Amino acid sequence: MSFQKLDELCHKLEALEHALAILGADEATHMAVGGGAKRAEAMAALAGMLHRQASAPEVRDWIETAKSEDLNDDQRIAVTELDRHYTNLTCLPSEFVERQTVQRLRCEQLWRDLRGKNDWDNFRPALEAVVDTVREEAALRAQVLKLDPYDALMEQYDPGNRAADIAPVFEGLKTFLKDFVPKALSIQAERDAKNPRKPLAGPYAVERQRALGLALMEAVGFDFTHGSLSVSHHPFCGGVPTDVRITTRYKSNDFLSALMGVLHETGHALYEQNLPHEWGHWPLGRARGMAVHESQSLFVEKQLGRNPAFWQWALPVVERELGESWKVEEILPWVHHVERGLIRVDADEVTYPLHVILRFELERELIAGRLNVADLPEAWNAKMEEYLGLSTLDNPADGPMQDVHWPSGAFGYFPSYTLGALMAAQQWAAFERAHPDANAEIAQGRFEAVNEWRRSNIWKEGSHYSTPDLVTRATGEKLDARFFIAHLEHRYGS
Amino acid sequence: MSFQKLDELCHKLEALEHALAILGADEATHMAVGGGAKRAEAMAALAGMLHRQASAPEVRDWIETAKSEDLNDDQRIAVTELDRHYTNLTCLPSEFVERQTVQRLRCEQLWRDLRGKNDWDNFRPALEAVVDTVREEAALRAQVLKLDPYDALMEQYDPGNRAADIAPVFEGLKTFLKDFVPKALSIQAERDAKNPRKPLAGPYAVERQRALGLALMEAVGFDFTHGSLSVSHHPFCGGVPTDVRITTRYKSNDFLSALMGVLHETGHALYEQNLPHEWGHWPLGRARGMAVHESQSLFVEKQLGRNPAFWQWALPVVERELGESWKVEEILPWVHHVERGLIRVDADEVTYPLHVILRFELERELIAGRLNVADLPEAWNAKMEEYLGLSTLDNPADGPMQDVHWPSGAFGYFPSYTLGALMAAQQWAAFERAHPDANAEIAQGRFEAVNEWRRSNIWKEGSHYSTPDLVTRATGEKLDARFFIAHLEHRYGS
Repeated sequence: MSFQKLDELCHKLEALEHALAILGADEATHMAVGGGAKRAEAMAALAGMLHRQASAPEVRDWIETAKSEDLNDDQRIAVTELDRHYTNLTCLPSEFVERQTVQRLRCEQLWRDLRGKNDWDNFRPALEAVVDTVREEAALRAQVLKLDPYDALMEQYDPGNRAADIAPVFEGLKTFLKDFVPKALSIQAERDAKNPRKPLAGPYAVERQRALGLALMEAVGFDFTHGSLSVSHHPFCGGVPTDVRITTRYKSNDFLSALMGVLHETGHALYEQNLPHEWGHWPLGRARGMAVHESQSLFVEKQLGRNPAFWQWALPVVERELGESWKVEEILPWVHHVERGLIRVDADEVTYPLHVILRFELERELIAGRLNVADLPEAWNAKMEEYLGLSTLDNPADGPMQDVHWPSGAFGYFPSYTLGALMAAQQWAAFERAHPDANAEIAQGRFEAVNEWRRSNIWKEGSHYSTPDLVTRATGEKLDARFFIAHLEHRYGS
Repeated sequence: MSFQKLDELCHKLEALEHALAILGADEATHMAVGGGAKRAEAMAALAGMLHRQASAPEVRDWIETAKSEDLNDDQRIAVTELDRHYTNLTCLPSEFVERQTVQRLRCEQLWRDLRGKNDWDNFRPALEAVVDTVREEAALRAQVLKLDPYDALMEQYDPGNRAADIAPVFEGLKTFLKDFVPKALSIQAERDAKNPRKPLAGPYAVERQRALGLALMEAVGFDFTHGSLSVSHHPFCGGVPTDVRITTRYKSNDFLSALMGVLHETGHALYEQNLPHEWGHWPLGRARGMAVHESQSLFVEKQLGRNPAFWQWALPVVERELGESWKVEEILPWVHHVERGLIRVDADEVTYPLHVILRFELERELIAGRLNVADLPEAWNAKMEEYLGLSTLDNPADGPMQDVHWPSGAFGYFPSYTLGALMAAQQWAAFERAHPDANAEIAQGRFEAVNEWRRSNIWKEGSHYSTPDLVTRATGEKLDARFFIAHLEHRYGS
């Protein structure tokens, strides 16, 4: 039976993915510094084996045969989802993939070097080459997938997402934020002037911060029989669903930095830990995509973790673990701090979407060929001035050289961040409609109901549905920015 | 060129071995408890890929062709050593290997359950099945390798070792020890009566013990850019040569327990870290075998780490890290403690060889078919009474059910432990002849010369030579028990 052959294949692929995931997490947490070269060699070889086995020509035959076999509903969807993966994996000629891999690596290496030197001129030709090839890739994928080129790229990260649906949502959000950011900032300035902030100064010992993080992780639902917390230079959520590795990094003068990072990664981890295990070796059993994943991390970090009700419950835990007493009204100015800045990853939830919309608009133009790399610094600056009132004209390092995404060829990924934020707000609103006691429970440190809601509406679905379908099924309607806007107005607008 | 094909194959195999080594070490140190089932699945699948690729039929052709290619000396030896691996890997029919794997797993599982219950009767049939199959295995290997059956088993662990050479060495050692153990015990009793021991009581905080371990590891030559120390239930040395993972476990009332374990594993690690890296992906670049590996761990633990000169230097470090002051004459009774016991892994260096010789003698008889599993408890007991004056007649759990080796089918392995101890003594003697200041340097915490000697005589050779040839080249003569005997007489006989 072909389904059986596919099932065996998926077990083999899962073993290689398992190895890559654990080796990757290990590299960032426990590997000795001198182990890097051999680790890179080993991971490249394993990735090669994975690609070869996943894209073998006979898999196409098995998929086609399996479609006409006597399968139950889940099996049928599993084959369809595998088909989608296989198509996306094999629709580029291998000659093209090799050329692109070399180009991306080269550009990423250059970027690591030249960003620090703010050297756009020497970086530009490499980025131009990457953009040329991404245009080719988009065209190749578009032809096979029968999609618009940019959509064909997004499809890799969020199956079913279409720019034509997203653009108007982002447009409305942008219009709102251009007015709302100044408003939120002036409200904040007024409040700070009236009640100067209690300083957040520390020093907070790493061991105490870690204990605090573990306590909150556990309360929020992290399953320590299937995961752990360690330290790395850049926080991440990695590993495998049965053993999720999350990390943070500690600042001795600011316990919120590590803690909010822990909550963010815990959100990712809850999704992974609660995926349908019986399908763990099939694409069907994986998380839906980048936007939904981000919605789960932002749900925990922003919807729960920056909710005043959360801090009613959490501050006694902070006092117990850090020996420092805070009132809710003292901590909220830090938790809800808003600031205009050039750097996306440092942005708060109010300004963050503008960073993403800027990139979304620019990369659509780049892929469509209506914008050239040579004109990127000016185009970036124009939007930065319009959206956030900041200039990057003399500072391409913090402009189009800011992120690793473009040098590494990841176009179509940026929207996921803000789509995740919108989804999280829409999920919270749907949950609160079904469960009016939501805030009262959070204020008591009770997360069973909110986790149960996400388990049955999102986590257990794995990759059963496309991204937009999952949103609609979970929340009762299509993605709409009004929930996120209402959330920001409620939290920052008064 | 076939050599090139083999080189590429070795790179692929190394990647899978790398993954298995790191996943294995990770499982014992950082894996979440619930991650075990998927980890086992992933590792089994990777091991299957490794076996399939390593034993593919075309590899035989490449090896044969490569032999007639224009190769330099190292390349030629590399092909010969790979040939040896390939032959050992492929000389059993795959039907047989599958049957044996199932049988061993079953017996090992039973053993885990029944050892605790001291239930020999229910364990016996499973062990009988394993022994039957090991006899078959030995016959199959013997035919291909043109060796005696038991030698064909030992060949898997220590290439070149032959029972006909080892038996007389063990015979002489046994004769010596049967008299020497009582003598050493009475010397110890007399000394303890005259000078009661300073108690070793603690509590010693784990963090302080860890710092002490790290300090001694570093001094002894462990390279922390290529390795690390963590905690596991059973201490081990794992990982890969560029990232060696050693572990220990801590007792709060006895710092020597963890520390001597750390020194033992550091000995293994030094060997791994100093293997010839340019051959790291070929069998040629690996450690020679189990006996030589054990000689390196015992060299550091027994020859260096239980040497009084070592403690002259180490006790100030102990005082600095643990805040407890010891004199050399106070610590030595603990470091040189001798005790007759039933359990091999708890034995000191004086009694340990008798545990091994007992097993070596019994397993040779088992493989030869001159002893049956049904008679094992009595045969074990008879030797235990003769060698150590202890009975296991009502206690098969501490008799033939004591170790995991036999249930898991590892016959021919036990000799390596004591061969390693003999080699370590012979190596130390050779080093001291070449370097009469050895003890004075150790007493100053200087290990450059002793490491340089081992680097050039053992570590850098990888698998260039057979086990006996390596011993002869390094020490100038065949393995001889007289160095170990002299070592014991010097340390415990006066």
